[in-house]
Amino acid sequence: MVTEARLLGEAEMDALALGAWILGTGGGGGGDPYYKLWNVKLLCREGRSVRLIDPETLADDALVAIVSTMGAPLVAQERLPDCHHALRPVRAMEAHLGRRFDAVMSMEIGGGNGLQPMMVAALTGYPAVDADGMGRAYPELQMTSFAVAGLPAGPFALSDIRDNDVVITNVVDTDWVERIARRITTEVGSTAAICMAPRTGAEVKRHGIPHTTSQALRLGQAVQHARREHRDPIAAILEAGDGRKLFTGKVVDVERRTSEGFLRGRARIEGLAADAGREFTVLFQNEFFLGRLGERPVVMTPDLICVVDAVSGDGIGTEAIRYGQRISVLALPGPEVFRSAAGLAVVGPRAFGVDLDYVSVFEATAP
Amino acid sequence: MVTEARLLGEAEMDALALGAWILGTGGGGGGDPYYKLWNVKLLCREGRSVRLIDPETLADDALVAIVSTMGAPLVAQERLPDCHHALRPVRAMEAHLGRRFDAVMSMEIGGGNGLQPMMVAALTGYPAVDADGMGRAYPELQMTSFAVAGLPAGPFALSDIRDNDVVITNVVDTDWVERIARRITTEVGSTAAICMAPRTGAEVKRHGIPHTTSQALRLGQAVQHARREHRDPIAAILEAGDGRKLFTGKVVDVERRTSEGFLRGRARIEGLAADAGREFTVLFQNEFFLGRLGERPVVMTPDLICVVDAVSGDGIGTEAIRYGQRISVLALPGPEVFRSAAGLAVVGPRAFGVDLDYVSVFEATAP
Repeated sequence: MVTEARLLGEAEMDALALGAWILGTGGGGGGDPYYKLWNVKLLCREGRSVRLIDPETLADDALVAIVSTMGAPLVAQERLPDCHHALRPVRAMEAHLGRRFDAVMSMEIGGGNGLQPMMVAALTGYPAVDADGMGRAYPELQMTSFAVAGLPAGPFALSDIRDNDVVITNVVDTDWVERIARRITTEVGSTAAICMAPRTGAEVKRHGIPHTTSQALRLGQAVQHARREHRDPIAAILEAGDGRKLFTGKVVDVERRTSEGFLRGRARIEGLAADAGREFTVLFQNEFFLGRLGERPVVMTPDLICVVDAVSGDGIGTEAIRYGQRISVLALPGPEVFRSAAGLAVVGPRAFGVDLDYVSVFEATAP
Repeated sequence: MVTEARLLGEAEMDALALGAWILGTGGGGGGDPYYKLWNVKLLCREGRSVRLIDPETLADDALVAIVSTMGAPLVAQERLPDCHHALRPVRAMEAHLGRRFDAVMSMEIGGGNGLQPMMVAALTGYPAVDADGMGRAYPELQMTSFAVAGLPAGPFALSDIRDNDVVITNVVDTDWVERIARRITTEVGSTAAICMAPRTGAEVKRHGIPHTTSQALRLGQAVQHARREHRDPIAAILEAGDGRKLFTGKVVDVERRTSEGFLRGRARIEGLAADAGREFTVLFQNEFFLGRLGERPVVMTPDLICVVDAVSGDGIGTEAIRYGQRISVLALPGPEVFRSAAGLAVVGPRAFGVDLDYVSVFEATAP
């Protein structure tokens, strides 16, 4: 189904940020979209808006910029994002290609990266494509539907927060983009704005994850609506996202370290109410990738593991999860493409160093 | 004085390699030029040659490619160099600039990098400029006369041994080129071919170190001549290079480690003949940067510290110096520009982590 183009203003940006932060599974382009949201809102208040277009309306030969912030979430919360920085790798890529882009879209809809194309779009007037390459957030660059489809990994552009712009003009594969770009990102301070390999309209239509911006908007609006109506935001998320609640409890312990450009660690949660007496652990590499009830793995990547505030339904990031928070652990289904053999090779449990065969939480018996 | 253009064939390449290896002060673009020499010689045997031109004959707006191998010498001796790899960053830079180069020259005349422009020149027909940016070899990219002069540090191109090409299109300064390029080089295996910021003819004439290719040729030919005449090659080097012999002895201990993309360590030498009973230590970071007689520093960067075989006069690299070798430690004077305050800030002892004021071995009393 092709949806009409729609204009996103300040109100939609609020909902988008809320929804993207839930889909971020704890991370995504610097984690909490709050600062990026404010950058876009300020542009909206200057009279700008963003035109969100359906991927099916792209011409086959249209050229789409795939944008993102790369780095460790904790760092991106210290160095505030800005729209002009987000635009820099796009301009570097255009200079390299010798032509302008026709549209911009997110590498990942989750977390701050859900807002990244909005920053560029609001500044340039490029339309934003209602799609992304992950349908959530993942920590590494090769974890996209485009990489699973075997599309070219380069060229690739990266800009740090100073005046350093780097273009990887030729590259062996997406793993090498990740290795080289991760090293550069670490050296420049573990945060960088990037523009990934340009995709044609035909490639976005064939291999992108469609309508994920709308999905984030819908999730965010459901939470907003529930809050206005004094209903349970968690129930609203589960209904809007076809999700399942796995656990509710209090965070009692967090291990967290920033290494090799990633934020890694785990959080332990003691059950409350119906979950009293049980313990749940979530493991993360920028994003949550595994959840254990006691010692038993019950939910794992590529299913979305969403940790949200048990009362407000706000996303909680791996950089911010802390002792004492009352949280709910939810699972949402991810895009089909990542549950294929090729998809699991790139984003399954073993891609995160966990020796488990993927079992969907939606197919297993309830924990 | 402007010299005539001259054609370099196989015989000149032999002499150039010999001389460049002495000027390499233990390193320079992968250390021992032997493998690069053979690459160029094979092209010469196919009927190619290299036209060596005086920098003064460059048009002011000519564009010169500054080429080099970057990495740890030990690694470059395991992964053999080839001319097509040396050319790749030059082509990447040309694609970035949208124009062809007019000539090619060495970032550093010392070691394998003295041959680097010859590899590119023999393959492309570009003339090689009789000049470089160091007058020797130094371990880091910002240690050039162009950086001391404050010329722009970018753009910069790097190619690994696979098919990864990276262009730093904008950069804050040469320190940032070094930091970013060193991280990439380390990630791709501690060896890469690079093309540094392009220089105009006017810049090369004003800020390059002139006639260093000729100097390497002259040194090499002096050694070849001495060997043919059964005279002492060491004396020939000292005469051709205005040098001073500091020590002769046997290597008794070597510490060596490859870290952060560099080869670091030290070698201890026990005196022989006139130096019997004394001990000399040379410290290195890819290249030799400090020599101590007993505990007393007697020679230091930017003076050239050349360790050569005591009999043949062949250069000995920091990657190859080993127990039992009979060696002579020679000092040769370096380019004036590096003895200025701006020069010493970039290549003086403190740039190598040694808290010493530079004293020229040629001005101090003999050890």
